[in-house]
Amino acid sequence: MFASRRGSLPNPTPMIAMGSHLDTQPRGGRYDGILGVVAAVEVLRTLAENGYSTHHDVGIVNWTNEEGARFPKSMMASGVWAGKIPLEQAYSLPDIFDPSVTVKSELQRLGYIGDVACSSTGYPLGAHFELHIEQGPILQESRKKIGVVQGGQAYRWFTVTVSGRDAHTGTTPFKSRSDPLLAASKMIVSSNAIAKKLGALASTGVFKIPPSSSTNTIASNVTFTLDIRHPDDAVVDEVQRFCTESFQAIAKEDGHGVKVDMSLDTDSPATKFDTDCIKMVEKAATKLVGVDGWLHITSGAGHDSVNTSSRCPTTMIFVPCKDGVSHHPEEYCSPEDCALGAQTLLESVINYDEFKAGQ
Amino acid sequence: MFASRRGSLPNPTPMIAMGSHLDTQPRGGRYDGILGVVAAVEVLRTLAENGYSTHHDVGIVNWTNEEGARFPKSMMASGVWAGKIPLEQAYSLPDIFDPSVTVKSELQRLGYIGDVACSSTGYPLGAHFELHIEQGPILQESRKKIGVVQGGQAYRWFTVTVSGRDAHTGTTPFKSRSDPLLAASKMIVSSNAIAKKLGALASTGVFKIPPSSSTNTIASNVTFTLDIRHPDDAVVDEVQRFCTESFQAIAKEDGHGVKVDMSLDTDSPATKFDTDCIKMVEKAATKLVGVDGWLHITSGAGHDSVNTSSRCPTTMIFVPCKDGVSHHPEEYCSPEDCALGAQTLLESVINYDEFKAGQ
Repeated sequence: MFASRRGSLPNPTPMIAMGSHLDTQPRGGRYDGILGVVAAVEVLRTLAENGYSTHHDVGIVNWTNEEGARFPKSMMASGVWAGKIPLEQAYSLPDIFDPSVTVKSELQRLGYIGDVACSSTGYPLGAHFELHIEQGPILQESRKKIGVVQGGQAYRWFTVTVSGRDAHTGTTPFKSRSDPLLAASKMIVSSNAIAKKLGALASTGVFKIPPSSSTNTIASNVTFTLDIRHPDDAVVDEVQRFCTESFQAIAKEDGHGVKVDMSLDTDSPATKFDTDCIKMVEKAATKLVGVDGWLHITSGAGHDSVNTSSRCPTTMIFVPCKDGVSHHPEEYCSPEDCALGAQTLLESVINYDEFKAGQ
Repeated sequence: MFASRRGSLPNPTPMIAMGSHLDTQPRGGRYDGILGVVAAVEVLRTLAENGYSTHHDVGIVNWTNEEGARFPKSMMASGVWAGKIPLEQAYSLPDIFDPSVTVKSELQRLGYIGDVACSSTGYPLGAHFELHIEQGPILQESRKKIGVVQGGQAYRWFTVTVSGRDAHTGTTPFKSRSDPLLAASKMIVSSNAIAKKLGALASTGVFKIPPSSSTNTIASNVTFTLDIRHPDDAVVDEVQRFCTESFQAIAKEDGHGVKVDMSLDTDSPATKFDTDCIKMVEKAATKLVGVDGWLHITSGAGHDSVNTSSRCPTTMIFVPCKDGVSHHPEEYCSPEDCALGAQTLLESVINYDEFKAGQ
């Protein structure tokens, strides 16, 4: 969904867009995405009410299906717009509860299929600014009000499978074991130490053993996930390399050893946002909260802006959310912080409009 | 089931028993328990065929329901005999597939309920020797033929619960996390190191996280089991104490820390077998395989002999089983090793009979 307000230049220009998404996760929250669209509406209303004329066209995008909750493909519409997801593939995504319903059939039913092309060539944008809650604890813990987002960090997901042999915990000495659960534990501890040393993140969210497991039996195999992240692709490479080496060494450490296999599930390279857009947000934030009131931050999660940044100058503005909680009914951003975010969005867009006009 | 052969002493004596069990696990194996009963029959047959007269009565016990597979209570009949399990409780155990069938109804149906008391006072034993496969790899790996069993090791089982907070792996820096999966991994690694240092065993067989886990979410809690074993109760105490201290320290190590709770599920003290019985087996084994052909061993698993040892002089004889595999269709003991075990059983019983007659 696009909404545009004409600028004062004689011809229409690709609009300077303020975009985010209105869809959300089933159990919350009320700010993730929604804040960015509602704030964009408020910015446009403020410009109109005050008779403020921008040089370029300025407008709003509501990117359909960012969460991928009902139709399981995240950042869908921005992916289509950026040419990363074929339109027909997006159209044919089925409702997770009723596969007879698709994205296309629902857009038709609601009258929202429209005739405006969802593509960066058919509907180009001059820039894309996205206000969003941080979805992490960094701003709250550092007592900053605004995060000026430098880009999205690279992340790489692995499934690690460790195979050994089931054995009786009472009758099998350590030196006779091939214990994948012990080895996997050591690998998780090691990946954490490696990531810490390199200033990266390494996390394990899933840890599976066979369902027949029992207190007095060594499990025959363990599967766990490894999620490596850093703003710089090269650092992710390095963490991966050290982990691979470390896991191989750990596999030989105890008893008869174990086998380890590490398979790549997802590889998402780092995104660098536009330096001009970033400067405009820095200028707005400094004016509003002072130079000590904001910080540079890298987005840890995926956003529509990661897609738009491949097609137009893009950045994001983060505001604090309580305890970093998101995708949860407790997700919260104070009215004051929401307003400050909206004001930063407004001033960033105006700064960018002035900057581009002066070029 | 008791079978007895009279000795030459003028009055019947409590028999020197060779006991084990004929019941097995649904998927195997063919030696666990069965070897001890079949070998006992062979010993008694050999004595009869050779007209060998012992001083004391000598006989066989087949202890009903050692595995607890069909009627879920392990070491049932020996537990009843030793006064650890009330007879009525054993009788009323239901079949796991058909609760209308009980131990008592099946014994009645089969005509095996009998009129001999299953109790150490109603049917006392002079001693109890049990031949059994090792169910571990120690004999095979050390190339020994006979294990002279010193007793059953103590074991203590715990459930450890580690609680943190779910969080996004991409947006939550290490210092802001409360990551129970990382902490649990460290605890498992630490418990292994503590046990190694003290010559004990510490094992984790079960590791559970909430079913909603995903690659990019820190789990909110983890539960794992800890199984500590050693032939000496005091060493188990020590491992437990070091683990408790270590777990508390680990809980504070990373980010905002985690909560850890360790609850005791099972506490089974060490069993020490009878020194006279052990000497008789040592003598028999030395004669048969030489002093370098056997070793002292502690049973890691539960056996009927653990029950009998509280009521009469008891020990066990272990023979190797292939790769330490048990409770599995691949469970295997070579015919030569079975025969050597049976011969050791025979000579141990004769040694004990002579020894007691000479006292």
